[in-house]
Amino acid sequence: MARIVAGRNPVIEALKADRVERLLISESATEDKGLKAVLHHAEAAGVRPERVPAGMIERHSAGVAHQGVVAFCEERESYSLNEVLDIAHSRNEPPFLILLDGVEDPHNLGAILRVADGAGAHGVVIPGRGATGVTPTVSKSSAGAAEHVPVVQVGSLTDAVLTLKRANVWVGMAEANAGKFHYQENLTGALALVMGSEGYGVSHPVAKHCDFAVKIPLLGSVTSLNVSVATAILCYERVRQNAQGKPKR
Amino acid sequence: MARIVAGRNPVIEALKADRVERLLISESATEDKGLKAVLHHAEAAGVRPERVPAGMIERHSAGVAHQGVVAFCEERESYSLNEVLDIAHSRNEPPFLILLDGVEDPHNLGAILRVADGAGAHGVVIPGRGATGVTPTVSKSSAGAAEHVPVVQVGSLTDAVLTLKRANVWVGMAEANAGKFHYQENLTGALALVMGSEGYGVSHPVAKHCDFAVKIPLLGSVTSLNVSVATAILCYERVRQNAQGKPKR
Repeated sequence: MARIVAGRNPVIEALKADRVERLLISESATEDKGLKAVLHHAEAAGVRPERVPAGMIERHSAGVAHQGVVAFCEERESYSLNEVLDIAHSRNEPPFLILLDGVEDPHNLGAILRVADGAGAHGVVIPGRGATGVTPTVSKSSAGAAEHVPVVQVGSLTDAVLTLKRANVWVGMAEANAGKFHYQENLTGALALVMGSEGYGVSHPVAKHCDFAVKIPLLGSVTSLNVSVATAILCYERVRQNAQGKPKR
Repeated sequence: MARIVAGRNPVIEALKADRVERLLISESATEDKGLKAVLHHAEAAGVRPERVPAGMIERHSAGVAHQGVVAFCEERESYSLNEVLDIAHSRNEPPFLILLDGVEDPHNLGAILRVADGAGAHGVVIPGRGATGVTPTVSKSSAGAAEHVPVVQVGSLTDAVLTLKRANVWVGMAEANAGKFHYQENLTGALALVMGSEGYGVSHPVAKHCDFAVKIPLLGSVTSLNVSVATAILCYERVRQNAQGKPKR
């Protein structure tokens, strides 16, 4: 079954990634700048838009704010951990992955895919158990990044950590109260960052295989940050270190 | 009229800030760890919880996920820009403020309050026009930070920028394509960061009074980051520079 992408920006990203098989546009959608952008990218991708009754869009969009636009897309290719490592190597870049341990909220997953794309990560690894995959809500929350960032679903996150370590990838985890501050740790080179759930952090079986932990300083009253915000702070510290050099020991 | 705070963590933060006048707990709430924490903080604050029917909680919580707990709180003190500057000076800290230009989504405002608290900002400035204030949704999205970070509502953001400049606060804005990368700019000292809306950026009348612009590098396909994520990246670059020194010119 085709995968459904709803909303203007996600559909534009799917068109750019050349994944759209059918494009449905509501008969009642206003011909504004956003819609013109969709039509422009559809033409560039050689996809002919079909005008359909608004109710049909509603029915396909699974409750996501669709803005009158829905696309049926090719099933995303699924990636293995090794394929993502190969992508990094083929670009001559040290692999950079984000592993999510217990982050199940689709808005958070979407937000993290957006951050991962912005910060140049090669892939996001999630456990295969549970229903979270790249749903329409995830795609929408990712502002289209879900069309570009490989998502790897694995049976066991612990096994994924061990595979990465065998491939000489350094594995760090975000912790509330352990390790150095994030800006004191070397975040350059081949790196996987493990982010835990907001309530429970990184689970013990995964944590015990991590090479190091970092914490983000909290200067006020809150005792944690949203997981997509924490991911962004760590990923962009890597971006900074790549540009300016790693911290001195 | 009393302000309503719903949800366990926001209510705990309100109890810690000593603002709760009445605490309502649903008769059907399960006696788990989270509820015990609420009761513990209520006792510490000298607030006696009232057990009420679930429907009453539902009615007061304005659609927010209340987790069986609602508090009636004192109206938050309102702050002026000068009061927030005074708070910074009284702590012997250079003022650090975040100005939001067109960020109207309550989830974003809540998320930014959480980031502002974590990164030690003295206040968040929003335009007074429009309905966005510290609503229950904002409070909930802030994970309780709304009880601690002063929010200043101003008639004109442009006037606020001019007031800050007269007070020797350096005013920078986040831009998609202008200025240096954020880690190349000095973000230490007395600073106000202006964040624009995701669609439109910082408005022209505000932008023309800013002292500098910074941009966040985007290495993948997305053309912008969520505004709370962008705020976090900039605020935590300041935290890093405060600890490790400002970038060399």
